[in-house]
Amino acid sequence: MSSGHPLNDVFHPRSIAVVGVSANELRESLMGWLPRLLGFGYQGRIYPVNPRASEIMGMKAYPSVRDIPGPVDYVIFNIPAQLTPQIMADCAAKGVKAVHVFTAGFSETGKEEGRRLEQELSSIAREGGVRVIGPNCMGIYYPKEGLTFYPTFCKEVGSVAFVSQTGAGAIRFVNLANDRGIRFSKVVSYGNACDLDATDFLNYLADDEETEVITCYIEGVRDGRAFFEAVRDCMKQKPVVILKAGVTEGGAAAAASHTAALAGNESVWRAFFKQTGAISVESLEEIVDVVQALLHFPCPRGPRVGIVGRGGGIGVLATDSCEKAGLAVPSLTEETRSQLEKVNPEAGASVRNPVETALGLAGASQFYQEGLKIVDADPQIDFILTHIGLDVYGGFGPSLAEQLEQTMDILIETVKTMTKPVVVVLYPGARLDVISAVAQAQRRCLEARLAVYYTIEAAAKAVSKIIRYNKFIEETRSEPVR
Amino acid sequence: MSSGHPLNDVFHPRSIAVVGVSANELRESLMGWLPRLLGFGYQGRIYPVNPRASEIMGMKAYPSVRDIPGPVDYVIFNIPAQLTPQIMADCAAKGVKAVHVFTAGFSETGKEEGRRLEQELSSIAREGGVRVIGPNCMGIYYPKEGLTFYPTFCKEVGSVAFVSQTGAGAIRFVNLANDRGIRFSKVVSYGNACDLDATDFLNYLADDEETEVITCYIEGVRDGRAFFEAVRDCMKQKPVVILKAGVTEGGAAAAASHTAALAGNESVWRAFFKQTGAISVESLEEIVDVVQALLHFPCPRGPRVGIVGRGGGIGVLATDSCEKAGLAVPSLTEETRSQLEKVNPEAGASVRNPVETALGLAGASQFYQEGLKIVDADPQIDFILTHIGLDVYGGFGPSLAEQLEQTMDILIETVKTMTKPVVVVLYPGARLDVISAVAQAQRRCLEARLAVYYTIEAAAKAVSKIIRYNKFIEETRSEPVR
Repeated sequence: MSSGHPLNDVFHPRSIAVVGVSANELRESLMGWLPRLLGFGYQGRIYPVNPRASEIMGMKAYPSVRDIPGPVDYVIFNIPAQLTPQIMADCAAKGVKAVHVFTAGFSETGKEEGRRLEQELSSIAREGGVRVIGPNCMGIYYPKEGLTFYPTFCKEVGSVAFVSQTGAGAIRFVNLANDRGIRFSKVVSYGNACDLDATDFLNYLADDEETEVITCYIEGVRDGRAFFEAVRDCMKQKPVVILKAGVTEGGAAAAASHTAALAGNESVWRAFFKQTGAISVESLEEIVDVVQALLHFPCPRGPRVGIVGRGGGIGVLATDSCEKAGLAVPSLTEETRSQLEKVNPEAGASVRNPVETALGLAGASQFYQEGLKIVDADPQIDFILTHIGLDVYGGFGPSLAEQLEQTMDILIETVKTMTKPVVVVLYPGARLDVISAVAQAQRRCLEARLAVYYTIEAAAKAVSKIIRYNKFIEETRSEPVR
Repeated sequence: MSSGHPLNDVFHPRSIAVVGVSANELRESLMGWLPRLLGFGYQGRIYPVNPRASEIMGMKAYPSVRDIPGPVDYVIFNIPAQLTPQIMADCAAKGVKAVHVFTAGFSETGKEEGRRLEQELSSIAREGGVRVIGPNCMGIYYPKEGLTFYPTFCKEVGSVAFVSQTGAGAIRFVNLANDRGIRFSKVVSYGNACDLDATDFLNYLADDEETEVITCYIEGVRDGRAFFEAVRDCMKQKPVVILKAGVTEGGAAAAASHTAALAGNESVWRAFFKQTGAISVESLEEIVDVVQALLHFPCPRGPRVGIVGRGGGIGVLATDSCEKAGLAVPSLTEETRSQLEKVNPEAGASVRNPVETALGLAGASQFYQEGLKIVDADPQIDFILTHIGLDVYGGFGPSLAEQLEQTMDILIETVKTMTKPVVVVLYPGARLDVISAVAQAQRRCLEARLAVYYTIEAAAKAVSKIIRYNKFIEETRSEPVR
């Protein structure tokens, strides 16, 4: 992290003022910017600003930012759009370094008044030397410093950054990712980007030592060239995963009305991904899938997968999904097949690829244990995908969670002795007791640092993208320096 | 249903013998073919066959099928493959009409011995006039007669049939579909199809008055022309949804080793779908999605969708998903937009399409109610997709289920007053309490006969396929009789 970077004031504010905090704001409610900061453990000074209150939540309230005695690094705007220029002037006068304008009602309305207001706001900020996140956005989630825009986000620190033009989408994404074991370094929802935009955040994150993986939700960027260069620079040091929204005609129109973004031409973005090597995904869920693989799936030597699991038809569908995603499902060698047959006691199980295991009613079997190792040793195979579905091995009744527990014991112990990467698919099923048992099994995989997915499609796509990413990195690194 | 059809003996057996029932088979275990029949309420006579037991589960056991005193309509084979020819000879001698060979270890092994055994089995059956389901399959789930191959399947009767070359996949599919409110008329898992195959079942289901929708999982068919004609005939009376597995090279090889099926050329299948108009899907989950739409989504006049929900970026992604699926997301009229603005109090919400609602912390709002009706009245719109995600409207804490409950009240009441079809997306979220609340909301939608999905992608794809299906039906019906 470069010291003196303007974004240091955003991520490391020594004091925060919240403008537009209600006099009735209660800590217990969790919502409201003040309770969020307090509840999440922010350690700096907090100043509520409200001209009609003298004390809020036990803290002295100030009529304006100018009236706060000490220095103020960062201000959160939670007031109607019409009032924002006046508050920004206060911030400039006070020497505030950065602000987060949560308030909406600017250029994204498509109306002259909103556009004018946004221009006024940003010109006051520029002249006063105040950097702006927003307007129309959720701001910062930085667990290390106790900053958050959603009270139930995970307080644990991780290595994934998310740069997002969507606020509600950022809430959804972080919740989803938290649930699948992903922890964050820094998250920013920056909305209309009247000042700081994706390019600024990427440039900062490229050198940020707390961040190992960068993920983005982008609707459009002001300066395409600068964004391209920022992504290319990041890619020299860490993977960048980008969800480009507004790729269809209707989607581009929607993006314009959401954050006033120019979504840009589809072919331009295709070329962008080809040249930067950034990993392109199509949904928030797929960002999580790819990050899972980046964090927990050591890249295999090639795309040849050995599929192991119960259900012949499930195996055929798994094979289709893998090949559609660009993976290969080759036959196993004669040697491997004859070894599998020796340990596989069950007629109806297949010893080819996909391999059908006799993962019986007891939840697991010797074959599963032995079979994984035999497939692991096959020279035709670069990695193993194993799929486990309670609903296809008779899992019902009270011992269901126990059965899965036992299967996970075998799987996790066996993987330790294997030479090739393993990806796990835990089919969630439909009933709540199954979902709950599967969530527990997922946690065990993550503790064992195993990439885990809910569908074979998701696993195959994510793994395939990681393999392509690694190939891109190898090729660009081996290119002569120009 | 044509009386005298050989499949009547399969679906309406007056007596069933189970060959290979263990002497220790307990009713409480639920597994085992005997407990399944008893537990599911089969009302005909049941004969356990086991040469080493005189009584099993309180019923007299017989040493062989020949020794059973009365007539036997149907026999389930649960014995090693090597013993099946002898049992089939017993069945032929006894005058059994149809059998289900659960046993595996035949041509799907790829081995000469398995192939020979299957030929022997089917020639004994053919000469003896016994019809065969299987080998290597789960057989029949026909809740009306108390027949099932999985103990926890729903006992309620419905109008959907499923014809499946996968057994484990059929278990997964029925569980999934049951959970999403789908009830079945008849399900058959037929495996290697040494006698009865998909074509036979389709021909039967075409005229089956209990079946309104036919769904299929197919790896390959013996007689492509006959299958084509069967599907075309079904399509004259009811929709047919087909998951063709083994479409990739690896998938075709896997299909050969699963059910010894010839998967056939991809371009042949493309032409097949174009000519028959059958609805093509890519996963078991997608069969459920399409059936949801067939049962609960009245086909709209066209593909123009009005999207209503919370989250600007979520709306942009929703628009992309809809347009990628072949739907259109047009702008609303000036009139609609100005009406929406009058009731929409919240800056940051959009009155274009997608429409962002001020569906606030209280779970629902007047705008949601009014907004849905205003979008419904827009002449540019053929139907409405509304997406609801607890994770993006602040849903957390103890009142979460309550918030969603209130939203569903408003939605279900409002839909009753609307003129155009509505499809609901209930985003499941990640936490178990959210999943549980959403499952309850899903049940309420289904009770109100509203098609409901977990993702916008799934809803958009399913609805788009229904629109195309209806167009096909309209066009073929308007063609002159040749």
